[in-house]
Amino acid sequence: MDYKQSGVDIDAGHEVVRRIKGLARGTFTPGVLSEIGAFGGLFALDAARYRSPVLVSSADGVGTKLRVAFMAGRHDTIGVDLVNHCVNDILVQGAEPLFFLDYLATGRLAPDVVVQVVEGLAAACRDNGCALVGGETAEMPGFYGAGEYDLAGFIVGLVERDRLIDGRAIAAGDRLIGLPSSGLHTNGYSLARRILFDQLDLRVGTYLAEVGSFVGEELLRPHRTYLRVVRPLLDGGAGPCPIKGMAHITGGGITDNLPRVLPEGTAARVNRSAWKPLPIFAYLQDRGEVPDDDMFRTFNMGIGLILVVGAGEAERVLACLADSGERGAIAIGEIVPGDRSVQYV
Amino acid sequence: MDYKQSGVDIDAGHEVVRRIKGLARGTFTPGVLSEIGAFGGLFALDAARYRSPVLVSSADGVGTKLRVAFMAGRHDTIGVDLVNHCVNDILVQGAEPLFFLDYLATGRLAPDVVVQVVEGLAAACRDNGCALVGGETAEMPGFYGAGEYDLAGFIVGLVERDRLIDGRAIAAGDRLIGLPSSGLHTNGYSLARRILFDQLDLRVGTYLAEVGSFVGEELLRPHRTYLRVVRPLLDGGAGPCPIKGMAHITGGGITDNLPRVLPEGTAARVNRSAWKPLPIFAYLQDRGEVPDDDMFRTFNMGIGLILVVGAGEAERVLACLADSGERGAIAIGEIVPGDRSVQYV
Repeated sequence: MDYKQSGVDIDAGHEVVRRIKGLARGTFTPGVLSEIGAFGGLFALDAARYRSPVLVSSADGVGTKLRVAFMAGRHDTIGVDLVNHCVNDILVQGAEPLFFLDYLATGRLAPDVVVQVVEGLAAACRDNGCALVGGETAEMPGFYGAGEYDLAGFIVGLVERDRLIDGRAIAAGDRLIGLPSSGLHTNGYSLARRILFDQLDLRVGTYLAEVGSFVGEELLRPHRTYLRVVRPLLDGGAGPCPIKGMAHITGGGITDNLPRVLPEGTAARVNRSAWKPLPIFAYLQDRGEVPDDDMFRTFNMGIGLILVVGAGEAERVLACLADSGERGAIAIGEIVPGDRSVQYV
Repeated sequence: MDYKQSGVDIDAGHEVVRRIKGLARGTFTPGVLSEIGAFGGLFALDAARYRSPVLVSSADGVGTKLRVAFMAGRHDTIGVDLVNHCVNDILVQGAEPLFFLDYLATGRLAPDVVVQVVEGLAAACRDNGCALVGGETAEMPGFYGAGEYDLAGFIVGLVERDRLIDGRAIAAGDRLIGLPSSGLHTNGYSLARRILFDQLDLRVGTYLAEVGSFVGEELLRPHRTYLRVVRPLLDGGAGPCPIKGMAHITGGGITDNLPRVLPEGTAARVNRSAWKPLPIFAYLQDRGEVPDDDMFRTFNMGIGLILVVGAGEAERVLACLADSGERGAIAIGEIVPGDRSVQYV
């Protein structure tokens, strides 16, 4: 009995490491000191550049969106989802990403699949100016079904302490600005899969006329990053940052995410007629007979990020977003006195 | 059809978050600005304290040691394994931990199990002076078997650039000092389980007279941290740090880990008679009929960390380790000219 017979192939692991080294190297920013393969990733902070740096970190997974990737046999988009998700999670506190690490666990290493996943991670890291400095690829026989894996990501970013966005200054009268999502992002896949694949017995290759795309294409559309369009507002080149709070609509819908940035004594009034949810949401609600409340608690409904800004800043913020190329950012409601809840009108 | 019917219970998720908040809070160090539940964990770096800070990060899992925890129904040690593993992974580059995040994925949330896991994470974080600033608990119906989960961790530490330990100065004549492991740590569980549970048909409750412990007890013994005993050598209070390189023996044995810190033109000669492997390794080798090479490639064989120091420093380093309470640190070999391999003598 040797280690390979027990289901773990150290040589395959080494091959994977070799192949992903080049992909990771393509994401390196000036701070990176190490190459993948050292025990830890090394990132040199330019201490002179910061007055009072705060490291902002987040851990996330992709959830059961992975199962759609398995069904479609497509593994190069999941990494984009994960990185963008993490980037958005620290962006809402005003942080810009520094570096990222991944954890990929599988039953038996399929080097080509791992490389596809890392291609997605690396592409999104480059896109966000974030270095992929390390990760762990774990072969765990018997833990994952054939051809299946789980994927988690860890991100570290930085914000100056006096530019930290924490929602504390949010007050009644502030405006909510919604930025469109590209689809389901990484939310509500257990429910969506149940409806599409179990109830309706569709396939990833089924074309949905009402939605205008194939099931697999629609469900795998990557979670978008908001860094590029929000960054000009953070930098505050034309004045102090107008954003008082931001909510990333993920791991649930607006109902549970928006309150996370609301201070005591405030609530959010969201005008549902301000935007038209993407067609996939209407399709899921209709075919799955999902109650309205559950839709807004589970899915992003077409809004992936919400900014809270002073009433007098809303026009300027919308204009700045448009200048950055953001299409479809819209005023979707306001802050009212309340108990840290979301009221839909 | 609502979200809960589809297998995801958002309320159970909220309950878990509430219960682990207190555990995480107990690990907070002065740098921590946020509480768990914000989108990202916040850690303020005291920039004035550092000349040229390098952030050292690592992502890791626990591997199939988890399956032993499932068999034993014991979930409070696995978190200790994970944190200590991560702490050691950045310690080998000279870094002290700042903060930690976890990723826990399961099929259906069992709040009590999650809380047990986080108790272990929090205890080890406190022990290492590392703040548990966040994490992700993912419920992924159909991904994990009943009562099963996967667990990954992510650590960020810091080292001054001129104190970074990278093995570059290692040269022929240097000495290897081995620090004892507490057991299998997190290595080779697929092979160990195959031998103990499949070949020998043992149970976690079986007592192994040759080893002096129960199977479950022996296999779940936590991965130890080396931070406390190595830190006095890093600080270099009595002079410059004598450590030229360090290898954490994990994710494989000495054979594959030690070369990771060796510069070109050097090799390691390890004297196998310098120490007696823990009884569990002799038991596994004997009963599993595992070749010697595979044992040293798969298991730590009783040595969890190797320091490379100048020949003239070895005595002082051993004395310093003893002063820190380290029992059983021993000279196990030396650096010779060679091709970045390990030769056993």
